[in-house]
Amino acid sequence: MATDVHRPQTGTLRWRGVELLEYKRAGTAPFRDVTRQTLFDDPTLRCQLRYFEIAAGGHTTLERHLHAHAVVIQHGRGRALVGDRVLDVAAHDLVHVAPLTWHQFKAAPDAPLGFLCMVNAERDRPELPSAADLARMRENPLLAQFIAV
Amino acid sequence: MATDVHRPQTGTLRWRGVELLEYKRAGTAPFRDVTRQTLFDDPTLRCQLRYFEIAAGGHTTLERHLHAHAVVIQHGRGRALVGDRVLDVAAHDLVHVAPLTWHQFKAAPDAPLGFLCMVNAERDRPELPSAADLARMRENPLLAQFIAV
Repeated sequence: MATDVHRPQTGTLRWRGVELLEYKRAGTAPFRDVTRQTLFDDPTLRCQLRYFEIAAGGHTTLERHLHAHAVVIQHGRGRALVGDRVLDVAAHDLVHVAPLTWHQFKAAPDAPLGFLCMVNAERDRPELPSAADLARMRENPLLAQFIAV
Repeated sequence: MATDVHRPQTGTLRWRGVELLEYKRAGTAPFRDVTRQTLFDDPTLRCQLRYFEIAAGGHTTLERHLHAHAVVIQHGRGRALVGDRVLDVAAHDLVHVAPLTWHQFKAAPDAPLGFLCMVNAERDRPELPSAADLARMRENPLLAQFIAV
């Protein structure tokens, strides 16, 4: 279906004709309180643009994949694990997740975290960390603390 | 060069390590008071994400091309000509410019207009309207008024 020329906001970071979806199918991977809206998924564009929102205290899945993420924080604040780093992120910050880099986004305990994510339309499926991967990550105290919470 | 993992805002819609550029080389096409910042241009992503900001009273070039635009308004307000429509746009609105569609963005007389634009990394060059194209657009009173101002 052709993408509408103009989709105004209908509420804060909700749009006319854009369905509010669960981040992933429940039970397929660990996550908490995340919604997904696909803003652009057009055959003439080689990437998709999605908007994710994590409620206060929620988090995305800790995962990695061959495809990259280009993230623009739009709303709220939180933290992100990207490779061997833990970032404090707030509105308008840019976050780049390179191929095969472990990553996870967490909203602050008292604020949501909303972000745009650009991703190749053709892409591989995410991989979850094995017990050995998690053990390696926990050798870094920063990551150990992030993963534990 | 690899894209930095984290580029926080250094000012309103300015980022660490992101160069503030002129929209286009002066004299190559008509435009007024537009800056360009390339937020993501990474070989692992098949699209680029750019941030454009038009100062109050300014405008982008009226043009068309084979590639599409996926636009998220980030800041301020203004109007956009897209095909045979003139849209009032404000923060967070989504605008889709389909292939070969004439388009132009104008900031309000008293407010800037800033927007993200996702575009295929491999793309054709824009085409400017001929006198005949402009005459056809002016047959539509809405477009005639938009183009004249």
